[in-house]
This record gives sequence, structure tokens and C-alpha cells, in this order.
Amino acid sequence: MSTENLQEQHPAHSLAFLEDAEHGIRVPVTEIALDPSPNGEANTPLRVYRTSGPGSDPVVGLPAYRAAWIAERADTEAYEGRGRNLLDDGRSALRRGAASAEWKGAKPVPLRAKPGRRVTQMHYARAGVVTPEMRFVALRENCDVELVRSELAAGRAIIPSNINHPESEPMIIGKAFLVKINANIGNSAVTSSIAEEVDKLQWATKWGADTVMDLSTGDDIHTTREWIVRNSPVPIGTVPIYQALEKVNGDASALTWEVFRDTVIEQCEQGVDYMTIHAGVLLRYVPLTAERVTGIVSRGGSIMAGWCLAHHEENFLYTHFDELCEIFAQYDVAFSLGDGLRPGSTADANDAAQFAELDTLAELTKRAWKYDVQVMVEGPGHIPFHLVRENIERQQELCDGAPFYTLGPLVTDVAPGYDHITSAIGATEIARYGTAMLCYVTPKEHLGLPNKDDVKTGVITYKIAAHAADLAKGHPGANERDDALSKARFEFRWRDQFSLSLDPATAEAFHDETLPAEPAKTAHFCSMCGPKFCSMRISQDIRNEFGSKSAQEAIAAGMAEKSAEFLAQGGKVYLPETISVGAPQ
Amino acid sequence: MSTENLQEQHPAHSLAFLEDAEHGIRVPVTEIALDPSPNGEANTPLRVYRTSGPGSDPVVGLPAYRAAWIAERADTEAYEGRGRNLLDDGRSALRRGAASAEWKGAKPVPLRAKPGRRVTQMHYARAGVVTPEMRFVALRENCDVELVRSELAAGRAIIPSNINHPESEPMIIGKAFLVKINANIGNSAVTSSIAEEVDKLQWATKWGADTVMDLSTGDDIHTTREWIVRNSPVPIGTVPIYQALEKVNGDASALTWEVFRDTVIEQCEQGVDYMTIHAGVLLRYVPLTAERVTGIVSRGGSIMAGWCLAHHEENFLYTHFDELCEIFAQYDVAFSLGDGLRPGSTADANDAAQFAELDTLAELTKRAWKYDVQVMVEGPGHIPFHLVRENIERQQELCDGAPFYTLGPLVTDVAPGYDHITSAIGATEIARYGTAMLCYVTPKEHLGLPNKDDVKTGVITYKIAAHAADLAKGHPGANERDDALSKARFEFRWRDQFSLSLDPATAEAFHDETLPAEPAKTAHFCSMCGPKFCSMRISQDIRNEFGSKSAQEAIAAGMAEKSAEFLAQGGKVYLPETISVGAPQ
Repeated sequence: MSTENLQEQHPAHSLAFLEDAEHGIRVPVTEIALDPSPNGEANTPLRVYRTSGPGSDPVVGLPAYRAAWIAERADTEAYEGRGRNLLDDGRSALRRGAASAEWKGAKPVPLRAKPGRRVTQMHYARAGVVTPEMRFVALRENCDVELVRSELAAGRAIIPSNINHPESEPMIIGKAFLVKINANIGNSAVTSSIAEEVDKLQWATKWGADTVMDLSTGDDIHTTREWIVRNSPVPIGTVPIYQALEKVNGDASALTWEVFRDTVIEQCEQGVDYMTIHAGVLLRYVPLTAERVTGIVSRGGSIMAGWCLAHHEENFLYTHFDELCEIFAQYDVAFSLGDGLRPGSTADANDAAQFAELDTLAELTKRAWKYDVQVMVEGPGHIPFHLVRENIERQQELCDGAPFYTLGPLVTDVAPGYDHITSAIGATEIARYGTAMLCYVTPKEHLGLPNKDDVKTGVITYKIAAHAADLAKGHPGANERDDALSKARFEFRWRDQFSLSLDPATAEAFHDETLPAEPAKTAHFCSMCGPKFCSMRISQDIRNEFGSKSAQEAIAAGMAEKSAEFLAQGGKVYLPETISVGAPQ
Repeated sequence: MSTENLQEQHPAHSLAFLEDAEHGIRVPVTEIALDPSPNGEANTPLRVYRTSGPGSDPVVGLPAYRAAWIAERADTEAYEGRGRNLLDDGRSALRRGAASAEWKGAKPVPLRAKPGRRVTQMHYARAGVVTPEMRFVALRENCDVELVRSELAAGRAIIPSNINHPESEPMIIGKAFLVKINANIGNSAVTSSIAEEVDKLQWATKWGADTVMDLSTGDDIHTTREWIVRNSPVPIGTVPIYQALEKVNGDASALTWEVFRDTVIEQCEQGVDYMTIHAGVLLRYVPLTAERVTGIVSRGGSIMAGWCLAHHEENFLYTHFDELCEIFAQYDVAFSLGDGLRPGSTADANDAAQFAELDTLAELTKRAWKYDVQVMVEGPGHIPFHLVRENIERQQELCDGAPFYTLGPLVTDVAPGYDHITSAIGATEIARYGTAMLCYVTPKEHLGLPNKDDVKTGVITYKIAAHAADLAKGHPGANERDDALSKARFEFRWRDQFSLSLDPATAEAFHDETLPAEPAKTAHFCSMCGPKFCSMRISQDIRNEFGSKSAQEAIAAGMAEKSAEFLAQGGKVYLPETISVGAPQ
């Protein structure tokens, strides 16, 4: 674990809080200090959304921020949970008698709903109760708490908040709110350790990941997840079928509902906030993928398709869906309904298999809502640009506005190594039309496992897509950071340009490659033009002349008149006084 | 000059030719050899558009590919040109008595139109004459030559082809054809040498730049351009006002029409194929920029605005526009009508200044067409995603379909260091609706001058945007490369995945970071899942079962029926036979 994970992105950044004194709620934000303008005017510090939390020593974990709120509702009971079996950490743990790095930090006693109680945020929203989680989110999103409650009640937004993950800071996923991004981490059979995954978690939230999915498929799955949940200020998502598959030696045909249910309960007790469930991969849909260019590319989707074919039975996640709802309702775990039949190539986009599954995901969404269980729906994948919009519009209509959570989509298949870019293009388009959360794609997509640099590149690229969509949606205040940075640029406040950017260190490093000298950071020219001539400098002269709005209008009117004369006579236009431009000094 | 510039992108790539034997025309393409499928079927090699030309030793230059075609038209005459003045290379050359690296290769005697003749491709297209340039382009674009001629005649497309740049391979810019990309190179007062710029030229065309603009503003401008033009298989564009400004010691107010005209003729004789002319920056528009967040950010725009204000006169590029048309018509130089008032921040997008200038660019487009001079129109810049489409639709309507050539646009201002990405998002959107050429943006935009890595990143990123737009437009055959790569991916033909990608070496390097062993390149699993489990492997099993279309339909029908029973009875669906899936070996 490198300490850089816990440092601010930039020296001009600091931790500040939005306060709701009445309810004793404090929302952490990042405050960016700004230099004064050249004319001496001060520039108000900018406060931006912060996902990195208070920071933690990984072996200790984070404080249980929400514990008091959960206790106050008096709707939960502590119980002796399922605990952990060595097999939960795979065969190597069985051999060893231990995981490779056991969790030694405090582990909360598992909570579940008291008999007959529902503990979900959706339940309270529907009952008209405003929870501290809702107030936290309203402050964080700078919106009315009633908007939060009503969107939750309608199922158009979710606050993933497992009662066994009290360390998390509430965040909301819904199209009425800021577009969110998820970062995937997790080990695989071929590489990486527990420490690396915790390091990636802290790194991803430092750069702006709103949720993190632990997609581990290798050894130490249970213990890796324990370290991640205890250290995570953001909701954690998983795909439980991966662990269940480990428990049956990777033999998809050996999976059973009982093994899966046991794995889900194990993860509910650990504090996983949302789980991807591939309950829409129905037996009758499987043959629809046979003629595809790339068949089934979702791991979970192909596991369940394999199981269905091996047993000639309907997907057990579908047949046992109501039992899953009952379990999730006891912990406030949210469904992320997996699109196991998503297209794996632009050639397969928007096909019969994909849309057949979406019909089933819509049916399941409404079944989950009957249990007050929060739901989001997963989306593709690989979609050519002109077919992207249909995906969000169809999902929103069929699923009554349940939040859409998409992977990209990638708008071309020809650029492995650059799929963070091919997918950010599709992600911006699909978020513009209402997708609530974007699952990042790193440069390693299709090629290998992301390292720390890839995680950062993926997160920054997706912050760009999400923010561009917020601007396109006209989200209130979304343009503040753009305008502050543009003003700094126009005023040659180089340090502020760096500190206002999504990746200050990279911006500064790129600048310094061309103009390393410290004075260049306050120089009144850009490295593109050099000191002798600069376009910004000339427009400063123009502004100095036509500065005030009234003056500008007067002159514009006068100029229009004069230029009419000019055009008539081909003569000269006379201005009130001479303006000297010359070469910038 | 590194020899890697002249190598193919990948060992599986080779130079091939599309032949028009009847007219003796050969169009170079890159042929990508493919491995057979696992079932033994051969995969036809894929031929893709190639911009890198035959390759040249920079000190010698390229062969005069088009010279015979130009001569055959018998519409030009050689003459003793203006030649070169030492001042053309700046004050350091005056001191030195020479440029820092004089061009020693062969220099063609300048040609111009015979008196009373027009030599432009637009002139011939309007006269119903099909030139070899048009045939070359038709073969290259795989379209009917009549489409090429008629689009040229209507002004909806251009083939930039200065008669003094016979080394260039004809290419077409227009919305009916493949979306093109431009790469900017060029030195500045603060850095870089002639050799570096030639190196960047060859590097940019190797990765797919369709045109290159030499934006040099430092020393040796004339000689740098000579090296670039003589070595360039793609059209070269410039912004002559930059050199003109050098000739008057960087004092915008000292510029005159005579100095500018002389500079334009100098560049026409050298072989520049298109020039950015900021003739739309009218005196009366300048005050409209005073209240902007970022004023005027175009260098050429601010030079002309500065000149207008200094002299209280209308822009001399506007008042002398017809003389420019007469000059361009003699050499077949195309206008790139500069958008000097483009927004420099999302806050300034689609404002009065920007659209006032566009009205004037539309007027100038039609004036140039009177002289049979080819024209494209430049566009922004910084535009929030939801306002991008209006730019292309407005330009197309006002300019009667003249090709639009945009810089990005960037859809947010908050990510310096990643503006290749912020702009590729806007570029895909604007190209989808008809923008014909995209000017690349590199990661160094706003921060510094691009190095060789930045040039490559910018070109690849813009190939992605252009290709994604071609797919979205349903351009015939645009999906072939995507489908070939997706098929290779599904069949675990790793080497073909690399060779079919836009950047094979990077794709392979990323793969090898996780699975370096050579056998992994033929392994039937992805590094994401590891050997024990793989989704593609399972869907292969599904395809093996439901392979043929007819079988698939039969089974799908049967399954639908069975699943109806299943849903009715909650019982089992019986398939013709048992399929064993199990864990992939």
C-alpha cells in the first residue's frame, strides 16, 4: 500500500465539509484553492465531489460511519452469522489452513432485519421516511432531499447501503443525479495479491470511482473482499457466481442453488452493497446467441448458459429469484441485474438475444420492487454509436425508469489497447440520455488485467465521460469547474489550471516537458505560441478595450453601423480612439 | 529520422495495390494476413486504407507520382518562381546566411496555370471531365467515380492537390466518403528542429493521418516546409499568416496584404495543398468576443482581430479575398476557411461571435466557388456534447454542403492532459452528422508541444473517432475490420487480434504484461479469466451445439414451445440430446 493513495491529488486540494448542522451530517468534499486574477480579484475556492473518504490504514479499516444511523432505526438484529469456511478462500486456503493474508482488523457482528422488518432505503422512501442516508446524499448532490426520497420510492434511483457496510458514505445512482462511475478490481487465477487489490481500491476512489466492484476469481476471494469492504468508503459490488463457481472447482454444471444462496448470504454478512445476478439468461434465449460473431462474452452469462444446457433446466437464479429478494431485503443489498447476453462485438449489437434478456430483466425489476429491494439494470457492451441511444431508451421504458448501469459501450472493435477511449465515446452518448452509472473500461480491456496505472487511466477517462454527460444534461452547477478552469486558462493562472484539472500532476508534467522553468508557470503565454506571440494575450487587449457589457454593446452597435457605412463606401470605419496592439511584450 | 517510421505497423502487414489496369492507376493499401480458424478454414487477408505512401529517404524525398497526370492536362506552364528569400526562414537565417538545414534534394520547377486556364479539380469536375486524381480516389474509397466527380462539382467534396505537390497521393474530403483526420506538426519559438518535424510527418502518416498541417511558427519556416512537402504522400496544409507574422517581426499591426500575398505565393510554389485563411474575422465581430470567458483563442483569429483594431480597417483577407481566389485557382490550392472566432471554452460555445463568423464563411465559400476553387470550412473547438450537432447542421445548411473540418470539439474543459479523449468524444458526434475531416488533438493540447508519442496517440485516437463515425453512418464495408477482429477474438486467434488492431504493438505488449509466454498467444482462454474458466470457451460449446442457422432456428422454435410448457408446468424442458459443458480444459 503506497501512502500516495492517501494524499490529496494536489497541494491546492484539501478536505472540507458540507454541513447539515440540524441533522448532524457532514459531507466530505475536496476544496480547490485558487490564486487571485491578474487584476487582483480573489477567486473563490471551488468545492468538488469527493469519493476518497477520510482515508484508512488498510490493516485497521475505516470507522463505521453509518453505524449510529442504522442502530437508531432499531429495525436490525445482530446474530451469529454464517461466518467463514476455509473453502470460501479456495483450494489453496484449504491446503494452507488459512488465507494468504488473514484479515486482522475489527469485523462487525453481522446484522440482519428483525423478523417482519424491511431495512431497505426503498422501504423507508416509500413509507415517506427521510433517512440520514437520504439527507447525506441530498447535501452531496446539492439538491432537495424530497427529490432523493421520491426518486428512491419510484425505483428511479438507489442508494446501495448494506447494513453490514457501515463504513460507506451514502451515494445515489439515478438519472436525476450526477452520473456515477464504477471501477472494477479483483484478482484472477493468473495474477495479483490481496494487498494489490486494497491498493487499487484506495487508488480508484482517490481519482473518483463512485463504486468499486471486486471481481476476484482466484484464491483468497473471501478474505480479499473482507479487506476491501472494511477499507471502502464507497459501495462495493460483486458477482457472487464467480465465488460459487470456485466452490465447485470451476465446474459450471456442478453449481446448485444451495451453493449459490450460501455464497450470497456469506457476502451479505460481509457487507457487499450490490450484487450482479444473471437471472435473465433463460434457457430459451441461449440458442439465440449461436449465430453471433462473438457468442456470449459475459462470464456470468456463459456460466448460467452452460448450466442451463448441462441440466436442461431453467436458470436457477430465475426460478429462485423471490428467495433472493427476501435475502437482499434483510440486508439492503441492491440487485444489479446482469446482462449475461450483452453483445461482445458491434456486429452483435441490439440483437434478439440481448433484447429478449432485457424483457426478462424488466420483469425481475418489478418483482424485486415488490420486496422493496433496490434495483439497477446492467447494459452493454459493444454498440455502434448510432445504436447506443436505443439501449437506454428501451431500458428506461421497459424497466419503469430503474437506473441503467452500462459497460461503455465500445463503439468500435478495432482498437484493443485503447478501449478506454472507444468505450468513453459510447459512455458519454448513453449517459447523456439517462444512464445513471458507467462501468469503466481500462486500456487493458480484452488484453489483460489492469495495473494501477490502468485503473487511474480508466477512472479519469470515465470521469470525463460522466462529466461531459452532466454538462450535456444541463445538470445544475456541472459547468462550474469547466468555467473556473477556462477562466484560469484565459488569465494564464497555470497553477490553477493544474489544480482544477482531473489529473493535476499529469497536466503539470506535460506543461513542464515544454517549459520546465518555474517562471513559465506564471508566464503570460502558452508553450504552443511561445513568448513572442500569444492569442490569449491579444484577446486580453480586446477585452481591456471592450471590457464592460454596456461598453461592449454600445461599441458593437456603433461598429455595426460604421461597418454598414464601410461596406457601402468601401471606406474606413472610425472608432472612438486608436487602439495599439503590436507584439505582446 | 528513425527507420521504424518506414517499417510496416506489424509483420503481418504488407503493401499491396488496388489496380485500375485500364487507366494505369495503382492505389497502395495495407494487406493484413490472417491465420486460419480453429476449424481449419482460411481467413481472407483484409485490405485497409493506407496513408503512409511508398516511404522515402527524407534527404531525397518522394517520387513525383502525379507529375505525368498534371503534364497530360497541358493546362500548366513552368516559370521562374518567386523562389526563396532568406527572410522566409526568419531572422536567425538572415544572421546565419542560411537555414539551419538547407533542402538539398531535387526541387521541382514551379508550375502555374497557363493564362486563362483553371487547373482545379473542381473546374474539371464541373466540366464533366474525370481526372486520374478522381479515378485514384474512387478506387481508394471503393466507390463509383461519378460519385467523386459529382460531389467535387457540387463543392461537397475536395481533393487537395496543388500542382506543385506531385508527390501526393490523391485523397478526398467530403461527407459522402470515409471520415478523414489531420495531424498538426510544426516547430515553435520555444522548441524543435527540421529533422524532428519530418520525422513526425512520416510517423503521423504511418499511423493513419490523411493530411498533415505544418504549423511552424519558429525559425526555418520555409525550409522546414520544403522538407515536409517533398517527403509527404498526403496533402499538406498551412496557416500562412504565421509565416507572414514572422516576416514583420511578430508585430500584428505591421502586417500588410502585400506581405501576406507574397507569403501565399511562396507557399503555392512550394506545393502547399490547402491553406487556412481567417477571412471571416470581421472588424464588427471583434467586440462580440469581449465578454467571453476565453475571448479569441485562434492564433490566426487573434492576429487578424489585432490588426483590424490597430488599423480600424476591415480584415485585409476579406477585402482581398477575390485576389486570393485568383491565386489559388492557378495552383489548385484549396481554402480551409479558418474559424478565428471559435470558442475556446464550453462556456463560449455556439455564441454570437462564432455564428456571425460562420455566416461570413458561408459567403466566402460561394465566392471561392465562382473561381472553381475548392473549399472546406473550419469548425470548433470547445462545445458541450448536446450542442455539437447544431454546429455541423448549421454549417452544412449555410455553406451548401461544403466539407466541414473541425478541431475536436472538446466536450469539457476539465481534463488537460486528456484532451485527445475529451475531443474524440465530440469528434465522433460531429462526424456522425457529416463532418468530413477531423483535426486531431493530442494529450499535450493546452499544455505543450506534442512529441512523437503524443502524435501517435493523437492519430490513433482520431482514427477511432473517424472509424466510429463511419460505422454510425453505415459507410459500406466500414464494419469489415471490426468483424474480422471480433471473429479472431472469439476464435482466440490472438496474433490476428493484434495485427487487425489500429496499434498492433501496443495491443500485443498489453497482452504480454499479463501472459508473456508465447503459448498464451494461441491459448484458448483470455488473461482476464485464466485457463480454468473462460466465457468464450463456453459459448464455443453453445455454438458447436446450435451452430447452423437452420438448426438454430429449429431449436429456438422448439425451445420457445418447450419453455412455454416449462413455464406452464414448472417442469423440465427436454432437449434432443444431452450437452456436456463442464469446466473448460
